[in-house]
This record gives sequence, C-alpha cells and structure tokens, in this order.
Amino acid sequence: MVYITRKEHFSSSHRLYNPAWSDERNWETYGKCNNPNGHGHNYDIEVTVAGDPPAETGMVMDLKKLSDLINMHIIDRVDHKHLNLDVDFLRGVIPTAENMAIAFWKILEKEIHGGKLYSIKLNESNNNFVEYRGE
Amino acid sequence: MVYITRKEHFSSSHRLYNPAWSDERNWETYGKCNNPNGHGHNYDIEVTVAGDPPAETGMVMDLKKLSDLINMHIIDRVDHKHLNLDVDFLRGVIPTAENMAIAFWKILEKEIHGGKLYSIKLNESNNNFVEYRGE
Amino acid sequence: MVYITRKEHFSSSHRLYNPAWSDERNWETYGKCNNPNGHGHNYDIEVTVAGDPPAETGMVMDLKKLSDLINMHIIDRVDHKHLNLDVDFLRGVIPTAENMAIAFWKILEKEIHGGKLYSIKLNESNNNFVEYRGE
Amino acid sequence: MVYITRKEHFSSSHRLYNPAWSDERNWETYGKCNNPNGHGHNYDIEVTVAGDPPAETGMVMDLKKLSDLINMHIIDRVDHKHLNLDVDFLRGVIPTAENMAIAFWKILEKEIHGGKLYSIKLNESNNNFVEYRGE
Amino acid sequence: MVYITRKEHFSSSHRLYNPAWSDERNWETYGKCNNPNGHGHNYDIEVTVAGDPPAETGMVMDLKKLSDLINMHIIDRVDHKHLNLDVDFLRGVIPTAENMAIAFWKILEKEIHGGKLYSIKLNESNNNFVEYRGE
Amino acid sequence: MVYITRKEHFSSSHRLYNPAWSDERNWETYGKCNNPNGHGHNYDIEVTVAGDPPAETGMVMDLKKLSDLINMHIIDRVDHKHLNLDVDFLRGVIPTAENMAIAFWKILEKEIHGGKLYSIKLNESNNNFVEYRGE
Repeated sequence: MVYITRKEHFSSSHRLYNPAWSDERNWETYGKCNNPNGHGHNYDIEVTVAGDPPAETGMVMDLKKLSDLINMHIIDRVDHKHLNLDVDFLRGVIPTAENMAIAFWKILEKEIHGGKLYSIKLNESNNNFVEYRGE
Repeated sequence: MVYITRKEHFSSSHRLYNPAWSDERNWETYGKCNNPNGHGHNYDIEVTVAGDPPAETGMVMDLKKLSDLINMHIIDRVDHKHLNLDVDFLRGVIPTAENMAIAFWKILEKEIHGGKLYSIKLNESNNNFVEYRGE
Repeated sequence: MVYITRKEHFSSSHRLYNPAWSDERNWETYGKCNNPNGHGHNYDIEVTVAGDPPAETGMVMDLKKLSDLINMHIIDRVDHKHLNLDVDFLRGVIPTAENMAIAFWKILEKEIHGGKLYSIKLNESNNNFVEYRGE
Repeated sequence: MVYITRKEHFSSSHRLYNPAWSDERNWETYGKCNNPNGHGHNYDIEVTVAGDPPAETGMVMDLKKLSDLINMHIIDRVDHKHLNLDVDFLRGVIPTAENMAIAFWKILEKEIHGGKLYSIKLNESNNNFVEYRGE
Repeated sequence: MVYITRKEHFSSSHRLYNPAWSDERNWETYGKCNNPNGHGHNYDIEVTVAGDPPAETGMVMDLKKLSDLINMHIIDRVDHKHLNLDVDFLRGVIPTAENMAIAFWKILEKEIHGGKLYSIKLNESNNNFVEYRGE
Repeated sequence: MVYITRKEHFSSSHRLYNPAWSDERNWETYGKCNNPNGHGHNYDIEVTVAGDPPAETGMVMDLKKLSDLINMHIIDRVDHKHLNLDVDFLRGVIPTAENMAIAFWKILEKEIHGGKLYSIKLNESNNNFVEYRGE
C-alpha cells in the first residue's frame, strides 16, 4: 500500500461564532476570530489517498486527476469566498478548521475511486494545522 | 551600511472594488477578488531598515524593538480584521497589496529611528508579492 | 476524531556528550555535536492533540490556549538557553532531539485537557526531525 | 519508541510510459509526463526509522550515519541521472514516485540497523508526495 | 513606484554541455550536470514588474494577467520538456540558469505593458538561484 | 550582468554582550540574547556574485565551486561552533548577524574570482535577516 498526497490552496474569509450564544461567550471562546466583520486565511489542503499501485501504471491514482477532483468539488466552491456566507455545504456549520476538514472529507469520500481516501489535512496558517482521517 | 529585516504575520479579509465604478467594471478589473462578501489571506510583512551598526552594539537596530514597532503600529490594527471596514488608516483606500505597502510605509517611516526605513515587502500568498521602497 | 497541531519555535544551544565516557568515545559517537563549547539550533516543536470537536464550538481545543500552554511550560524554559546548563527538567539528560521530545511529552501530557496529547515532533534543522507519540 | 527522520535531496529526469502500450494509451494515462524526451524534478526523500533510544546515547541512530547510508545507497545512484536510463535498480520499472519509494525501501531496509525502517516519503514537487511504509 | 512579483513553477530536464568542446573539458566544466542522458529540476520563476499603481485600481498590473502572460509565453513552452531538445527559443543555447533567465527576459519584455519588467529570478533548487535585471 | 546566489547552512551558538559594559546595560541592550551560557541558531548564508556569463560556459561562475569556497572559508570554521569562543576571525567581535555578515564579506571578497561579490545575506531565524553589500 502506498499513500499519495496532493496539496491545493485557497484563500477565504470567515468568522467564528455560535449564533446560539451571547456576544460575551462568543468572545471568550473565539477571541479575535470572532471579529464581526470577519478575517481570512490562505489555506493549504492536503488530500491523501491510499492504494496499491497496479504494475501496469505504477500509480495509485493519477495525481492530476486527484487535483482536478479537489478543485472541482472543493476549491472552486471556497476559494475567494466568505465561508460563513457563500458556501452552501458549510451552511449552519461553524467554519473552524476541524469542521471544514470533516465537511471536505464527506464530499471527497464519494468522489475518489481506485484508491481509498485516507486523510485530509488543512493548514490555516504556518503554525495551525488539523487532520481528519474519517475516524 | 547593513540592511536588517524583520518579518511579521497577519490574517485579514478584504474586498477589491472601486465604489466609483459599475459592478461590471469592478468584475472585469478585480475578478474573484471582487466577491461582495470578501475573502482573506495570511499576509507576511517584511520591513527592512538600513544603517551603519555602531561598534558598541554591532546592531543597526534591535530587531526585537523593530518587531515591537511593527506589531504596535501595523499588526495590532490589521490582524484578524476586515481591511475595508475595520482599519482607520485604510479608510477610502482600495486594499490592494500595493496600497497596503504604501500605507504601512507612511506609518512606519515616522516610527523608526536609528536606521532608515529602506523597504516594505508584503506577501499576499506564496506566489504574489509587492515591495515598496518609498520611491 | 480530529488531530490538531500547533507549531512553536525556540533557539537554544547544547552539547552532546555522555559524562560517563572517555573523550574519545564521545567524539566517535557524537562527532562535531560533541564540540566542548557547544553549538545551537532553531528548533520547531509541533504538538498534536486528538479529540472529537463538540458541535457547540467546532474545536478540539482552542489553538490559542494550546499555544499558551506550550509557551508557558516549554518555550519559556528553553528559548535562548543552554539546554545542558540552564534547563532544570533536562538536568542529567543528554539533550538529543529524541530525549527532548520525550521530556516535553512528560510535561505537556499533564497540562493538556479536553483532547488527548497524540504526538510531539521536534525539528532540529530542515533535514533532521524526531517524533514521539508516548508509545 | 521514537521516530527519527532524515531528509535528503536529488535532481533527476524521467519519462513515464509503459512500453507494452500504444502511444495513445500512454498519453491518456501519463499526459505531459509522457513527453518522449523526458522532464525532471528536484526530489526530497524523507527516511524515517523507529526505535527506542538507549539511555547511553539518547539517539535511536546517529542521523549523520543515516544520512551517509541514504547518500551511498540512493542519492549517489539517482542524483543528476535519468531514472529510466541510468539507474540499474530501476531497470524495467516505470519511475513513478510510488515505484521509486518502494524501490528505495527494498534497498534501505537491508542497510539500516539499530532501528527499524518505518517510512519513506518522496516529494516530487511542492504539491505531490508519496509515502511507503512497507505494508 | 511599487515592485510586484508573480512566482510560477515548471519541471524540466536538461544537460549542460558545450558541443564545441571535448568530453573531457565538458566534464571539467559542468561535472555531473554533464551526464549524457540529462537530469532535471523543479524550477521557480519570479517575475518582477515595477510601476506606479493608478489611484483608480491600486494595482501596478493585474497579477492574474501577469500570471497568464508568464504561463502562455514561458511555462507552456518549457514545463515537462527537455530544455535542450524541445524548446525552440533555447535552440543553440546552453541551458544554464543564467542563460534561461536572459532568454525569459527577452520574451517577457515585449509582452508586459503598463509596468516595466524589472527582474527575473530563477531558482533551480533550494540552494541555487540566479537573477537577471536586463542590465 | 547576472546575479547568482548560493545558499549554505550552519548551526552555531553565541552570546551577545559587550565586555566593556555593565551587566545591566548588556541586558538592556541584548535582552535574552545576553544569557550567560549562550543560545544558538540554524543560520542560512546566501552569497550573491554578479558577473557577465561568457558565451562559452553560460555561467557567471560554477555554483559548485562557489559552494566549495563558502564551505572551506566560512562553514567549516563556524558550523557546530561557539561563535564567541571557537572562531578566530570573530575574536573580539560581538557576533551579531550584522557583524557576522561583514566578517564573512571580508573573507569571501578575496576568494571569489571571475565574478564580483555582490551581497551576503544571513538569516538567523525565519523572521530575522541581515544583508551586507560591501557599501
């Protein structure tokens, strides 16, 4: 079994807040990420697929095709968008990196064939990362 | 003369549009950067100061102090903010990287003593950079 | 379950040597890392915590709080220090990256609540890394 | 148990194609990677060894020695070479990153003592990675 | 005046040799870069354009348009190609990084309008860079 | 004229202090960099040479040879050393990045032939850089 990974990039804005809470509790929980007008990030997404490369091709899956799938199903829907306002599949979800990774998994799991989706990593900054493995 | 550089980071959202223009012209000019709800970036700012290090200290300027100045006068006012809505010194300015670098220069030029402000670089993404040298 | 990671940085000096050994054996084992006056590194530490993000917050743990814990319990005690001479919790320990990762684990394991400490990675240079998972 | 990793670099050219196939099928499968005159990459290889560091040394394995092994058995045989034409241990193998990682594993597994080879990662570009763990 | 930079990437193979020389002199001059079957690199190209951003747009030049120009005139002609064999505008040129930067300048100088081409940087690896400013 | 750059790496420890000053003034000036037992860094040095590449070779200077010169004259004398105690050419110099860049310039200026030494950059950390151009 070999693990192959494709990294893609997008730039979005978001605001962390729970509409069921008071302003005070939102500030205590999310700090400056709760700023009402939002803020933004350059995100890196790393999608890892596990599989056994057939002798015929030597590839678990064509990385160009994996890139196309990530772009069509994720990047085109979140890049240069406001994650709270513009993204249908995040409606009603607090757009933390954790929730975003889980939402991306649900979408990509159905689209990837040949190999098995193994991990989604999301880097929100040089120092903050999350990973979801469908567990 | 030695050039010393301090790099700092901030995460903001913005929207590129000229209020004097039609929606159509804004889209033609700014493309997806014109999305009405905005988008965002992790910005790197690199501030370069030129000077002759005195023999006594061997430093053009204390980089810790330069870091403090950048944080107090720039980062604290733009980090986790919406650049069009939350930042007083960008009011009425289209927040392109070019305009931001010029605005940062105007602020820091007055605050830096000992050395001479030489350059401000602003990285909006891994592939897009601007630099302003006060020329 | 989601894995969240926070990366922090510190700069320290150290010397690798085993006081129970002859000078000769120390040089054979540690090479130039055994230089009597020491040398140093910029270290990156990546702390990964695993947990199930509650629907209410969407976060395994506040990454700002994780950053504060790492700074208070690790960075403030090793940054700009000599690891053999200045760090109480490394007294009597040969400060290899392996031993440092294990020592950091023992400290952080007790301080992290909400999620479970999953991994500590320590990068001593761009080409040398270690990881400890408490196994 | 601690995992230690050494990263090394090499620059090679290659061509992806299956000699048993028609030109058409090769182009459909490998796209521009099938260009007859080949193309090339700067590769990063990360070799991870797992082990229990003896109290006496505090090291799973001397990273300098691991570096020497990777250079002697891998880098010296692939660096500044054409992977399809110049490398004996890749003869008859389609030099995809997957197949290269597996071939490197087979070589290094026999050479590494003290610790156990755990993982080989191969980065073909900033956005494309593969990992093989001998499974 | 503001300097704006766009970075793009390509992967190519090449061989350094001067056909007017003996094999011996080629090996003395180019070392392993002279390997007859060639080798390859992931190249980064950074194109810097200088100009005065008009108040109306706040941009020296649309970086998306600059990216398109670099892709159309450079990347599409060198990416996944053999620089000695497949690239018309490098015919008869020894494809050192120096010569490539000069050749790219000659092409882009004619295509960039609005701002003035200021610099072309070419990174052949993490440790080797060249820059040409048309001087 | 083309500018070529070679990057090399070293890891050293140092202490910033001026022996002519009181302890108090040293702490005020250098802060935690004044810690008596020292601290350390992974340094990157970037050496830039300017020249006109002869048509015959297409190279300003062989980057391998430039690398050898930097290693022989700089890296071998500072790597895994204490900059205050172990380095003859820094005797009596406060080892700030500024002073180190100037000292490296004085050494390399005499060793580089064919091209002209143009710049020495020294990165002390990901966020702190200095550059000296012999001015």
